[in-house]
Amino acid sequence: MSSQATKPSTASIIDLLGMLAYGELVAFDRIAADAKLAPDLRRRASLSAMAAAEINNYQRLVARITELGGDPEAAMTPFVEVIDAFHDSTAPRDWLEGLVKVYVGDSIADDFFREMAALLPPTDRDLVLDVLHNNANAEFAISEINEALGRDPKLAGKLALWARRLVGEALSQAQRVAAEHDSLTEIVIEGTGDLAKVGELIKRIMQAHSNRMTAIGLTN
Amino acid sequence: MSSQATKPSTASIIDLLGMLAYGELVAFDRIAADAKLAPDLRRRASLSAMAAAEINNYQRLVARITELGGDPEAAMTPFVEVIDAFHDSTAPRDWLEGLVKVYVGDSIADDFFREMAALLPPTDRDLVLDVLHNNANAEFAISEINEALGRDPKLAGKLALWARRLVGEALSQAQRVAAEHDSLTEIVIEGTGDLAKVGELIKRIMQAHSNRMTAIGLTN
Repeated sequence: MSSQATKPSTASIIDLLGMLAYGELVAFDRIAADAKLAPDLRRRASLSAMAAAEINNYQRLVARITELGGDPEAAMTPFVEVIDAFHDSTAPRDWLEGLVKVYVGDSIADDFFREMAALLPPTDRDLVLDVLHNNANAEFAISEINEALGRDPKLAGKLALWARRLVGEALSQAQRVAAEHDSLTEIVIEGTGDLAKVGELIKRIMQAHSNRMTAIGLTN
Repeated sequence: MSSQATKPSTASIIDLLGMLAYGELVAFDRIAADAKLAPDLRRRASLSAMAAAEINNYQRLVARITELGGDPEAAMTPFVEVIDAFHDSTAPRDWLEGLVKVYVGDSIADDFFREMAALLPPTDRDLVLDVLHNNANAEFAISEINEALGRDPKLAGKLALWARRLVGEALSQAQRVAAEHDSLTEIVIEGTGDLAKVGELIKRIMQAHSNRMTAIGLTN
């Protein structure tokens, strides 16, 4: 296999931005719904503000898709089913499950898009890096999870199981995306010149996830 | 009754801002939920963006309550039950009902807060006027409603009935608020020096609502 890296096609970039845009739109309404599970108004407002930030990102991505000559709705549509399927199969049953989902889900998605961003031309790379979640969301989730585990250490087992389910579902939907959308694997292959890099990318993302779980005490 | 106007107390102002803040927080999650009723992704995103704007307003109101020496959560709590009751009893069943609710509800709430704002000291007056909905929301709702009525004029009866139900529920909850929260009627009485002004205020708001319904063809 050649290791000749080339620039990804505009069609591939539009595909990636379309996936990210629909992901933001869904994240908005899922996090907005989870906010209602909050134990008090202050926490509810924190989660609502996180949701609102996704819409700002969504709008920037849609503007860029249009600028690249794509139709935002057409770019998002192929990802609706798979992203909805992920969220439908992982609806949090309570406040803490919602936060673990924000933390685990955002982090994995961010790692994935950060890897992809590195393979894009500068304008799109900067946009994708810019719309990734800021650390405030993760820090809020970590501090809530830590506080809950401090009060009731037995929660760790239940939440660790939940985190594993989230990752399992994410991986199974990611395989569907990869199978259905050559454009995304193409970005990796064109960007790195090597199909084997897809496997390495997944391995790196899973390792980072594993480290995060250990760091917040969700390993058993 | 004296017509001597005085400045409303800080406690009254905090009460008003608390009601408005909780209203924004709820508007956020109701509009976010309604967005899922949208017939396509573009419209869904438009409604999601409206929801997101409410959170920005919420944050400004909370900052001001804190600045005035109030506790935002304590200021909002007395209004949770009544505002939730309004929304629980008026959950839209489809996209158009959601838009009529945005239009009717936002407009009435805005008229009410605009009246109240006029009675506040400059800083709070400007803040309240500033967080009122911009016309973009209403224009989006009007254009969607007009388009739907153009396609199917028979919808007018159903939507007019829905609008009347919204107003009925709003009035009944407003009476509860007035009965339970002297501070709000106090703002009117202190601001105008006249209890009779409360009745005039309600009359003006209802007249404006009526004019809006006529303007979009929802009168039968």
